[in-house]
Amino acid sequence: MKRIVLALGGNALGDNLHEQMLAVKSAANAIADLIEDGLEVVITHGNGPQVGMINLAMETAAKVDDSIFYIPMSVCVAMSQGYIGYDIQNALREELLSRNINKPVATIITQTLVDANDPAFIDPSKPIGAFYTKDEAEKMSKNGYDMKEDAGRGWRRVVASPKPIGIVESDTVRALLEAGQIPVTVGGGGIPVKEVEGRHLKGTSAVVDKDFASAKLAEELDADMLVILTAVEKVSVNFKKPDEKQLSEMTVSDAERFIKEGHFAPGSMLPKVEAALAFVKSAPGRKALITMLEKARDGLAGKTGTVIC
Amino acid sequence: MKRIVLALGGNALGDNLHEQMLAVKSAANAIADLIEDGLEVVITHGNGPQVGMINLAMETAAKVDDSIFYIPMSVCVAMSQGYIGYDIQNALREELLSRNINKPVATIITQTLVDANDPAFIDPSKPIGAFYTKDEAEKMSKNGYDMKEDAGRGWRRVVASPKPIGIVESDTVRALLEAGQIPVTVGGGGIPVKEVEGRHLKGTSAVVDKDFASAKLAEELDADMLVILTAVEKVSVNFKKPDEKQLSEMTVSDAERFIKEGHFAPGSMLPKVEAALAFVKSAPGRKALITMLEKARDGLAGKTGTVIC
Repeated sequence: MKRIVLALGGNALGDNLHEQMLAVKSAANAIADLIEDGLEVVITHGNGPQVGMINLAMETAAKVDDSIFYIPMSVCVAMSQGYIGYDIQNALREELLSRNINKPVATIITQTLVDANDPAFIDPSKPIGAFYTKDEAEKMSKNGYDMKEDAGRGWRRVVASPKPIGIVESDTVRALLEAGQIPVTVGGGGIPVKEVEGRHLKGTSAVVDKDFASAKLAEELDADMLVILTAVEKVSVNFKKPDEKQLSEMTVSDAERFIKEGHFAPGSMLPKVEAALAFVKSAPGRKALITMLEKARDGLAGKTGTVIC
Repeated sequence: MKRIVLALGGNALGDNLHEQMLAVKSAANAIADLIEDGLEVVITHGNGPQVGMINLAMETAAKVDDSIFYIPMSVCVAMSQGYIGYDIQNALREELLSRNINKPVATIITQTLVDANDPAFIDPSKPIGAFYTKDEAEKMSKNGYDMKEDAGRGWRRVVASPKPIGIVESDTVRALLEAGQIPVTVGGGGIPVKEVEGRHLKGTSAVVDKDFASAKLAEELDADMLVILTAVEKVSVNFKKPDEKQLSEMTVSDAERFIKEGHFAPGSMLPKVEAALAFVKSAPGRKALITMLEKARDGLAGKTGTVIC
């Protein structure tokens, strides 16, 4: 059976709880198609808007209510895994049962190991939470937040995004796969932890990129394919230019050349292509697919999407 | 191998994040003893202070920040499972590794099925969150919260606490046990869901008692023993009276008589004895143990605690 790690994009989750319920319901439908096709599926997902909301809520509440203490970003990520995973497992369970497929779905609270000396801690770059105007962003910046302009869509808070070097609970994910179950894991890239004093894993104020975490997980699970779902059907060179060209396939050397030529936007397509490359280069025979959720089934059948191999 | 469901009490978690880290570290030590003794352990836990804090934070933040939406209690329970489970799995992993025991520990986001017609929805009784003075409680009551006096310790918010009728993710918990792993599950009694329109599980504004949820889980897992950990070493009749008598054993009929005679405080020892009874009565040969965390090893060795059989 073909084992795939399926990394859901932000559009599979929406920006608030109501959107999330609707988006997840439609994602469940697309994911169930893949399970029905006989694929062994691990589901991963981002948490940008959600962890930003939770973090903001906790900070806001702590300011006006003495009984509420400061909650670190790592704990906010853990909370976001419950917040999002609950919806995914609930909706996918229902969709599978409606197709008479009796496969348990469950979310694993997952820690992702990062290097305490990762240079990302010096230059925070991962956008989280809501979009702000330039004026709002300047105010927040004065309050100690790192703010950056996000791909022309407005200003957002940014936190450090260190590279994953291991998925702490990957043995649990593997055990569930081997039992024929469907794990939801490394939500939001996993709770970022660094190893201190030997074995102790200490939470760190960061958010790991979910595509890099998914690539590391796929590597540890010896998956056949990493599927990164996003808002476009195929990766393009010269994106949004008159000579835009959609790609059906990229070799590792193609992809590395396109990256050097600046074809992929940082914080958008660039980390996805980089994550795909990380998995493909980790062992011979490994492939990655970048496409949109609605095209995942066709993509896995070789009909669309961009395959990196 | 003997399979036990170990329900951690509030004192194993503390009332805030800092207390939780310290309390969980010491709980991890006691739990590791049981694993080292060769027991197959499932860990469950409450979430009263934590879900109350999360719910209060979300409501407080939503009032002062338009970008934050109202978050239902069921979603707050899901978040609390991440918030607490992360600490438990992190601390227990470290303790086991320090003993050269290589057993993965992982938290499963868990839904608990309740009956939509449970009478508890009419009379909310489960205390959550912080303690308040009578004056504070009266103010909160005017703001639409249900408030009740909690066992002489002050006033608290109360929510409905329906009885669990099934644990949705018990197949996942079983698969992890069979793989030799240690699941953390039904945190805070599980996310309360009711079945609507056939298969759909809808979150409901309630908190399931963690001991009843643990009893239901123990039943579904065909566990040998349900271990309910609390602040006292043994269950007493005439508790805190001159003729207080600590019990080493209670038969089902003893326990039912003591309940009728009013020996156990509602919201305190009563639900623990009732949960123990529910498990013991579910099939022949099943036993429950009520004791304190530090005495769990001795209790399982038959040296202390109160055995219900």
